[in-house]
Amino acid sequence: MATTYRLVLIGFGSAGQGLARIISERGEWLRNARDLDLQIVAVCTRSRGTVYDPNGLDPALLLQTIAAGDLKQHPALVDWDAAALIANADANLLVEVSPTDLATAEPATSLIRAALARGMHVVTANKGPVALYFAELRDAARTAGVSFGFEGTVMSGTPGLRLCWSDLAAGEIHELRGIVNGTTNYILTEMEQGREYADVLAEAQRLGYAEADPSGDVDGHDAAGKAVILANVLMGAHLTPADVERVGITGITRDMVAVAAASGQRWKLIARVWRDGEHVRASVQPTRLPFSHPLAGVSGAMNALTVSVEWLNEVTLIGPGAGGNATGFALLSDILAIA
Amino acid sequence: MATTYRLVLIGFGSAGQGLARIISERGEWLRNARDLDLQIVAVCTRSRGTVYDPNGLDPALLLQTIAAGDLKQHPALVDWDAAALIANADANLLVEVSPTDLATAEPATSLIRAALARGMHVVTANKGPVALYFAELRDAARTAGVSFGFEGTVMSGTPGLRLCWSDLAAGEIHELRGIVNGTTNYILTEMEQGREYADVLAEAQRLGYAEADPSGDVDGHDAAGKAVILANVLMGAHLTPADVERVGITGITRDMVAVAAASGQRWKLIARVWRDGEHVRASVQPTRLPFSHPLAGVSGAMNALTVSVEWLNEVTLIGPGAGGNATGFALLSDILAIA
Repeated sequence: MATTYRLVLIGFGSAGQGLARIISERGEWLRNARDLDLQIVAVCTRSRGTVYDPNGLDPALLLQTIAAGDLKQHPALVDWDAAALIANADANLLVEVSPTDLATAEPATSLIRAALARGMHVVTANKGPVALYFAELRDAARTAGVSFGFEGTVMSGTPGLRLCWSDLAAGEIHELRGIVNGTTNYILTEMEQGREYADVLAEAQRLGYAEADPSGDVDGHDAAGKAVILANVLMGAHLTPADVERVGITGITRDMVAVAAASGQRWKLIARVWRDGEHVRASVQPTRLPFSHPLAGVSGAMNALTVSVEWLNEVTLIGPGAGGNATGFALLSDILAIA
Repeated sequence: MATTYRLVLIGFGSAGQGLARIISERGEWLRNARDLDLQIVAVCTRSRGTVYDPNGLDPALLLQTIAAGDLKQHPALVDWDAAALIANADANLLVEVSPTDLATAEPATSLIRAALARGMHVVTANKGPVALYFAELRDAARTAGVSFGFEGTVMSGTPGLRLCWSDLAAGEIHELRGIVNGTTNYILTEMEQGREYADVLAEAQRLGYAEADPSGDVDGHDAAGKAVILANVLMGAHLTPADVERVGITGITRDMVAVAAASGQRWKLIARVWRDGEHVRASVQPTRLPFSHPLAGVSGAMNALTVSVEWLNEVTLIGPGAGGNATGFALLSDILAIA
């Protein structure tokens, strides 16, 4: 007998569309092979319309409608905002993938709080709420007897959090080192072909891999937010992004890349979290790794996490770190874990 | 309130001692941080004595006694054999790590059957029972309402099975490719220094990395057994080791390694499992991989598994593939999953 979840999606960008695509194409497989019946009952966007149907929305039609520009032509158009949807929709699971600012973690955090208070499960791919308010939101979920899932916040569909939290639970984690920002890893990889930082960055911006204002990536803010999540979720710390020692990649030159290569090393932007006596510390900084280290081989936009765990030495997980389908996969993984 | 398991260990080689060491050193942490209370009530060896105490055996004393040669000086020495222990011990979990032949999967399989029939949970690091009798033993465990864990059978402490089975459950697995035999990977890695196969093998035998009769490793039998486990457990196949297309590494020469390197490639012994229409097929064979592939960077005795999964493309897990502590970690991971 399949477990049914009635989903409200707040945000319908690449992550939300990725989840809708998986449900659209693999809904029957999820019911048969995973005993999971997912019904999207509402999708809310900030400026592209909001739709709600308590009998369930056809995910293929949602994708087709949004592909044409917005949801305003959809037959189930309503004029509720996100807060009203969470308060009133006949639903039991919030998929929180709204465009959210890392500095304030809003509007995601307020919406997550409201959903948990109403007794809805919540899954999110937004870093902000977890980087800034993990302990509060975890406790609110416990109090409400529901789940709060956020696998997609660090490595998108590559299950780095779950690997540490669950599969490696037989020992204590001493240290985590990750390549958790695909944009900077792409830039550093391209620079190994002898190209200058500024040229590669300009190309990445042209291709849409980097933002017009690239500082969130190249100054290490994105990676620092992920380091905080790793520290607080997996090592019981209470860090904020300001606690992370942070150096970006803007100071890395073509010459530095060449010098490293000549001695068998590669520059990688490494987010690191480690125990220092009673404390947990975190840093983000360009680091030279020998070619032989598993993280050195991680090229382009891939992400990776090396876990130093008691009894095992190092375990490394490598996989995609971005993309709508991968993030949809992460959201679905969280929903499966609830079921 | 901690969950208590009363363990019977059949076999007390490196895996069993690894588990006893973790319990000895981290028993309090397991109770406090993992709500798990593990009591070893019996340890059975084929020729080095068997001990049983329903009040629990001190793991430190067990390790100290076996380090001195055998368990025959231990105060709790009894004359029960493995079958009698399983039938009569006041215990609810069998740790099956006896020296077991891959061809017959005995004595492990009979002991596992007996324990499941008595309603005991079973965890094992022995490939044979899972490679040959997975479906039967899984069903027997279900019927008895107990668990059958075998994470350590493929990559020792590196949680390749759990990654696929649980963390990547949101999509269907299309293909698995692994470096699952540390001995052959060590030999191939050393050959990249310009050494001949026979010289490296002789050294590996001297160092204890390879057996006096190396055929189980170098002819790919060990990897084939692991490929069968991957196919049957993760892709619902019903293969036997004889179904695996198998080529070992004995035909790989120094020249072949050099030629591959000159074109940016490395030879690796790859166990591969893939869907072919309605069927699942498996092979073990030396394969040239470009340096850029995550599996190409896996050197020495490390193991790795690349999973091609729907929506994510490739995810790769790299970690230790052998060793008493790592295998003890795998057994403990299985016990944690039961709890």
